[in-house]
Amino acid sequence: MVFKKITAADIAFFQSIEGMKAVLTDNESLESCASDETEDLHYMPEVVVQAQTVAAISRLMAYCNEQLIPVTPRGAGTGLSGGALPVYGGVVLDMKAFDKIIHLDKRNLQVTTEPGVITQVLQDYVKEAGLFYPPDPASKGSCFIGGNVAENSGGPRAVKYGVVKDYVLNLEVVLPDGEVVWTGANVLKNATGYNLTQLMVGSEGTLGIITKIVLRLIPAVRHDVLMLVPFRQAVQACEAVNAIFMAGYTPSAMEFMERDALEWSMRYTQATGISLPDDIEAHLLIEVDGNDKDALYNDMEAIAAVVQHYDIGDVLFADTHEQKQMLWTLRRKVGEAVKSNSIYKEEDTVVPRAELPELLRIIKQLGREYGFQSVCYGHAGDGNLHVNIVKGSMSDEDWNTKLTEGIRKLFAEVVRLGGTLSGEHGIGLVQKDYMDIAFSNRQLQIMRSIKQVFDPIGILNPGKVFAD
Amino acid sequence: MVFKKITAADIAFFQSIEGMKAVLTDNESLESCASDETEDLHYMPEVVVQAQTVAAISRLMAYCNEQLIPVTPRGAGTGLSGGALPVYGGVVLDMKAFDKIIHLDKRNLQVTTEPGVITQVLQDYVKEAGLFYPPDPASKGSCFIGGNVAENSGGPRAVKYGVVKDYVLNLEVVLPDGEVVWTGANVLKNATGYNLTQLMVGSEGTLGIITKIVLRLIPAVRHDVLMLVPFRQAVQACEAVNAIFMAGYTPSAMEFMERDALEWSMRYTQATGISLPDDIEAHLLIEVDGNDKDALYNDMEAIAAVVQHYDIGDVLFADTHEQKQMLWTLRRKVGEAVKSNSIYKEEDTVVPRAELPELLRIIKQLGREYGFQSVCYGHAGDGNLHVNIVKGSMSDEDWNTKLTEGIRKLFAEVVRLGGTLSGEHGIGLVQKDYMDIAFSNRQLQIMRSIKQVFDPIGILNPGKVFAD
Repeated sequence: MVFKKITAADIAFFQSIEGMKAVLTDNESLESCASDETEDLHYMPEVVVQAQTVAAISRLMAYCNEQLIPVTPRGAGTGLSGGALPVYGGVVLDMKAFDKIIHLDKRNLQVTTEPGVITQVLQDYVKEAGLFYPPDPASKGSCFIGGNVAENSGGPRAVKYGVVKDYVLNLEVVLPDGEVVWTGANVLKNATGYNLTQLMVGSEGTLGIITKIVLRLIPAVRHDVLMLVPFRQAVQACEAVNAIFMAGYTPSAMEFMERDALEWSMRYTQATGISLPDDIEAHLLIEVDGNDKDALYNDMEAIAAVVQHYDIGDVLFADTHEQKQMLWTLRRKVGEAVKSNSIYKEEDTVVPRAELPELLRIIKQLGREYGFQSVCYGHAGDGNLHVNIVKGSMSDEDWNTKLTEGIRKLFAEVVRLGGTLSGEHGIGLVQKDYMDIAFSNRQLQIMRSIKQVFDPIGILNPGKVFAD
Repeated sequence: MVFKKITAADIAFFQSIEGMKAVLTDNESLESCASDETEDLHYMPEVVVQAQTVAAISRLMAYCNEQLIPVTPRGAGTGLSGGALPVYGGVVLDMKAFDKIIHLDKRNLQVTTEPGVITQVLQDYVKEAGLFYPPDPASKGSCFIGGNVAENSGGPRAVKYGVVKDYVLNLEVVLPDGEVVWTGANVLKNATGYNLTQLMVGSEGTLGIITKIVLRLIPAVRHDVLMLVPFRQAVQACEAVNAIFMAGYTPSAMEFMERDALEWSMRYTQATGISLPDDIEAHLLIEVDGNDKDALYNDMEAIAAVVQHYDIGDVLFADTHEQKQMLWTLRRKVGEAVKSNSIYKEEDTVVPRAELPELLRIIKQLGREYGFQSVCYGHAGDGNLHVNIVKGSMSDEDWNTKLTEGIRKLFAEVVRLGGTLSGEHGIGLVQKDYMDIAFSNRQLQIMRSIKQVFDPIGILNPGKVFAD
């Protein structure tokens, strides 16, 4: 695909579109859309546009589709797979002006929102009405709900409440040729035609521009209890995860952190009030929630009894709001802490839950074999382990060649264990060359053909999901 | 599309396929696959085949694809939208020999099953291991899990536990050209490529033949409590549904039955022990479940307090297993009871929950306008109302012409309320001519193009979902 370079005439056209808030070509604006939170990647767009109406996006898309100009939609730029990076230049469609929560339908426990609303803002808004939108990616204070839908994000609560796809009822989408369609209906059950809604969720901005999102909500949950359990052997922490589920409990969070993850985060956040004895290899952060306080404490005690069977240190029960906040901040900041420490690559591996101990063993083994250090943490309750590979003292050559081989080996093992490449970050740019490990040619061909159904010319977020 | 008529040579080929258990052309076998549970429809296949291996299905499909022979997959034949009817003749692929539960993975709370397992059998099997597969269509004692996946079935428990799509992790599928693919991975979270699994769920056997199903399970729930609440005004029963959710409770079932529905089912099942005073217009059957018995009774009392605000009769609390069974049988048999009473058409309307009272009002108004009697019941907690339109004394002409107009009007109103055509029965044959009410041309064109990606020649379950 040879895309057209943007000309002054194109810019003039963009400026002429009614409802176009900004058409930016200054260096600062371009720079601000040249990277996201993925490694140290950098791709300059030719122009950044901010639309404020669906009609404006529709006209923009129709024009770019005709002119062979690539369009990369962008939310808050917090993605971890490079999905928002304009690898072929062209237009970055910045969605930040789509920042309105359109309608909270309390009667039906639904909210209709624009995609440029910060996830935390949306959560707080519905909470005011006694309602709950559970998915909570670590970046919830800065990421957009639209990006969450595009990537099918998860977060700690997914273990009990599911991921974004479990809450999306209906989407308004601008197709690459400018037509506007809804993907479904605002209903809890739907057996009417193919599930275009679920096809759009997690499609990483490659099938259409999401302009409205209808989410189902649930009644707010009143109480939660949190505990941090230190394990002397990391593999036992993974084993305990499964034992808790087998005992019949479904915590609202079940987070695993290797020693390094917690230590780096403690340093990064300058946390106090937590001790980290030398003999501790990993921690589980376990939360239970519900409406009956007594029942919660019973559950927490029963879970504590389960973990007592392992070689653990002193369990920390977080009683106060401040303590809970502190523990959650430590967990949420691990990613940033690792990033601040070294150049790194993050793999978002996911396996059937019970395979976690084996996965962790394999990661460390591969690290020894290919010479990399890894910091592992993530949503153990879902079998979703983030593997942060830090460059440290690795040579540039090893980093770019030998390591790639090691990552391929890692993904092959993940697939062998019944898992796949990404649990919640998406494939985007940085994992697309590994897709052949998880999928056969025929599977990939089906996905590519679906892409063609929506985007026959291929102008929408090109260079993502599929290997070139 | 002009399909080829099946010849003796085709039959001989089918017989030659290794792993083909039966190739049937006798009248009784053809008759047994000529109808399902949809109205009084009847379409004869030319041959019925029963395969017992994936490889046999693969060879069958490759051959039929090349020879332009239509193939209609069939589960237990309990469908309510005619999805399993061979409207173009050809081959019915009877999946009943795919009746093995392949692997219960207790460590990961997953089960891998073939599609020809009866849903109830699967539920009982996992229950033995302390696990729970919630979706429970009314026909669960006879329907196949494969059909449930194909139609994205629901059932009473969907209101708390979700529908089939919420439990399917991965599917093995034979494509129309005979290739075998898996749609995803056996993981709880997946952001790896387009969601082919969710595209396949609810595609009504038009995209591929499902040969293996991986389902997630949850820990078994220990207790439930059931009550039947009679309402003097049907519209108030619908209003109460919403009030219960707004009060913060999520029952594990919330079923609505119009007076006629219960009365016909009582007669049909020869139920005793239930009184139905003359002034009662409708009932809600409400179940709550959980692991803490005391908490359950508290919830049930709180819900009882909510419904007391309406004009209700004496609430029946079902204490014993027998009473619960009796009430559930009454609910589950409504469909059969209506069917035994008259020729009927069933519409599977679904709207945002709070719109139920308005929907019910509209249905009765349209009945008066178009001269039809309706018996309404269904999953009120999901906004999913089954509208059984009984022929009664209606003339054949009115039944076939005027009624169709009335149904179009009904669906238009459903869509106006934010709803859609089918909540859990699928579109199949009988609703396909109404698809233009719910979808624009562009939406339908996208769906048709997706069909072409999977089935370019169009041999798989032709004549379904899309208008001719």
